[in-house]
Amino acid sequence: MVGLGRIGLPTAALFAHAGARVSGYDIDQEVVEETNAGKCRFADEPGLAEMVSRLAKSGRLSATTSAKEAVKDADFIILCLPTPVDITRTPDYSAVRRAASEVGRWMHKGVIVITESTVGPGIVEGMIGPALEKESGLRCPGDFGLASCPERSDPGKILADMRSVPRIVGSTNQECTDMVAELYEGAFGVNAIRVSNPRTANAVKLTENIFRDVNIALSNEFAVLFEKLGIDAKEVIDACATKYNFVAHYPGTGVGGPCLPSNSYYMIAEGMKVGNIPYLVRMGREINDRMPDHVIQLISETLNRVGKTVSGSKVAVLGVAYKPNVRDVQLTPIEPVIRELIKTGAEVQVYDPMFKGEKILGFTIARSATEAAKGSDCVVIGTAHDEFKSLDLDALSKAVRKKAGLVDARNVLNPRDAVKAGFAYCGVGRNLQAPKSPQG
Amino acid sequence: MVGLGRIGLPTAALFAHAGARVSGYDIDQEVVEETNAGKCRFADEPGLAEMVSRLAKSGRLSATTSAKEAVKDADFIILCLPTPVDITRTPDYSAVRRAASEVGRWMHKGVIVITESTVGPGIVEGMIGPALEKESGLRCPGDFGLASCPERSDPGKILADMRSVPRIVGSTNQECTDMVAELYEGAFGVNAIRVSNPRTANAVKLTENIFRDVNIALSNEFAVLFEKLGIDAKEVIDACATKYNFVAHYPGTGVGGPCLPSNSYYMIAEGMKVGNIPYLVRMGREINDRMPDHVIQLISETLNRVGKTVSGSKVAVLGVAYKPNVRDVQLTPIEPVIRELIKTGAEVQVYDPMFKGEKILGFTIARSATEAAKGSDCVVIGTAHDEFKSLDLDALSKAVRKKAGLVDARNVLNPRDAVKAGFAYCGVGRNLQAPKSPQG
Repeated sequence: MVGLGRIGLPTAALFAHAGARVSGYDIDQEVVEETNAGKCRFADEPGLAEMVSRLAKSGRLSATTSAKEAVKDADFIILCLPTPVDITRTPDYSAVRRAASEVGRWMHKGVIVITESTVGPGIVEGMIGPALEKESGLRCPGDFGLASCPERSDPGKILADMRSVPRIVGSTNQECTDMVAELYEGAFGVNAIRVSNPRTANAVKLTENIFRDVNIALSNEFAVLFEKLGIDAKEVIDACATKYNFVAHYPGTGVGGPCLPSNSYYMIAEGMKVGNIPYLVRMGREINDRMPDHVIQLISETLNRVGKTVSGSKVAVLGVAYKPNVRDVQLTPIEPVIRELIKTGAEVQVYDPMFKGEKILGFTIARSATEAAKGSDCVVIGTAHDEFKSLDLDALSKAVRKKAGLVDARNVLNPRDAVKAGFAYCGVGRNLQAPKSPQG
Repeated sequence: MVGLGRIGLPTAALFAHAGARVSGYDIDQEVVEETNAGKCRFADEPGLAEMVSRLAKSGRLSATTSAKEAVKDADFIILCLPTPVDITRTPDYSAVRRAASEVGRWMHKGVIVITESTVGPGIVEGMIGPALEKESGLRCPGDFGLASCPERSDPGKILADMRSVPRIVGSTNQECTDMVAELYEGAFGVNAIRVSNPRTANAVKLTENIFRDVNIALSNEFAVLFEKLGIDAKEVIDACATKYNFVAHYPGTGVGGPCLPSNSYYMIAEGMKVGNIPYLVRMGREINDRMPDHVIQLISETLNRVGKTVSGSKVAVLGVAYKPNVRDVQLTPIEPVIRELIKTGAEVQVYDPMFKGEKILGFTIARSATEAAKGSDCVVIGTAHDEFKSLDLDALSKAVRKKAGLVDARNVLNPRDAVKAGFAYCGVGRNLQAPKSPQG
């Protein structure tokens, strides 16, 4: 297992749990030591810590910083490395490419190399395969197998998803596809969908994430428009969800995390190579990337309603994780909101139940929502953590300065409750002060 | 019931079936006579003909060309008129506006006027309400109720949808909303979702159709890109559909019918009024509207592979209905394909199982697929009619000239079968001749 991150570690653990002897390779000495000691840093992944502890003790799961040691006797080598985008939104495949070269140096004939990392269609055949061939001197498909089996699991429920969501397997030849499919079917107890080749498997992974990214963008586009039309976007989407062929996606501050914000750019990059830019995908990305600006506008508007400016105000941000109930702030869209608030002269205090008392994004996280809200002029809900669904609005109202705004950037609260507690309220797509229609 | 078209007639029939006395008003003398004679022109709507015949005989359903007669004793007046877009894609609400004025002249105090027609949010409150007030001299909500209850049913299974899909009801006041909700719940046996006002109800209807329009556009965008990347779009989408949060939409010639191609423009028009253009919605529309050009390109490419040009070729188009198994060619996207083929110098023969021997789109429709295909150089599947799923490719292959192309613009056929039968094959998103990747 090459890479022991949020995907690599549970994958390694599940294979070891199924009876395989798994050797994990990571360049991070600390991660390797942790794993060998049976420790796990992903406390927000139910069941994982216990599993890693048990398997490390039994010796079925071990880790090393030596590629040679991990790879030399392996029948299957699985690449589970991060594939981020850089500041210009260009895919950065350097980690997988380096790992492929490193692995190629030590792998033996007959091995099957499986890429679980999310990459653009074409990268496995066009970059990883050639890197393995060059370093190993072996040929594919003759000497080794090259397969894609992209992970399809959702942070916060990785183990559950790995044991229930079917896997997509594509390889350079049918025999290899079948072996990889049977490997996952046997170890994880899930169906494996066999597709024509690695690039098709990667296209599947990207297409399903882009589906979400574009549909979240569509809901964000409606949110901004509906605010102007005096329509509650959440009410509309909830009602749409009663139709059999509709799937609800909700507006918010934008999209964060390790997958959605970057996956669309991998597809765009592959499109650029063949002179065919997927415009909807790109526009979806841009709409989502601009939602923090809209949230800033809502903050400014609620402050304006209570006679205050952003500059000089104290803003309490509740929730910085990129999605509910996970300990992860990767590309969290609330971060640009916070940066802009500070740039505009606001003072910001942060609370997040997943990071109480820790130092995150340069802030010492408060111990409670009320502590963060103390003396603030505006409260902003940045993440739909479960805890916020039962937020004590009266306590919050007592903690803030009179009068204060409340911007629910994730539509967690009932607007009426917020207004009743005395806040000047805005939600994304729920601007209650919008002009009413003639009869409305 | 104002308007006895594909929605108005079954709605009228269902209310009459539930025990109401329904008077249908239509400006089309022929439709009125048909209805009074118990006849129905929608032979593709299961169960409708029998229901209309029975209810007309019993006298519970009658029709008239006099608004006065239909409206004067009515407790509820339902507007079911077409709302098309004109050639510049501007919504044309003239039919509903004229009907509202006509109805306003004869309606009495206490009546509730329900709009089922699909309109932009704001049109019921801003156009229909004022027209009713002006002509009647009555005030809303004091003297009469104004509600939206947009139809949510799918041509080809209108009755079934009306009896199963929840209704969205929004009105100018809560009492009126409840009365309308109970009316539909009682008569149709479905749930009614009560929303804040008419514009929210109309936003729901548009949002759910735009969701489909944009997602079909996304699949079309992927189709065109995947052809260049040597990936089969249908294989990808089928595999994506194994993930719990993905909904499959498939690429094709574009989007037709009375709803999807126009509904997005209603929303765009409302956006323009408040200076907020929903770009994703507009781009989705443009992508779908350009798919006929892509199909033309595929036809030209398959003909090229057999050494022929579009000019001078004979092309058989199988399927002209805008969607499977309906007798309807409204805005069917295969029509611009046919027009362009003729303009480029091809001869076109058409077959459609729903219109055998009839004159449609200026063509006399052939009696069978083989008859249309006789002597042709390219066969194009234009609609995914059930009949085409078991198309006899060997018979077709014998009917065409040697060699011939086959463009499956709806991905009904198995590509391998088409190739085996001797055709130069292309599907939308399935260009099998695309360049292969290094190892592929």
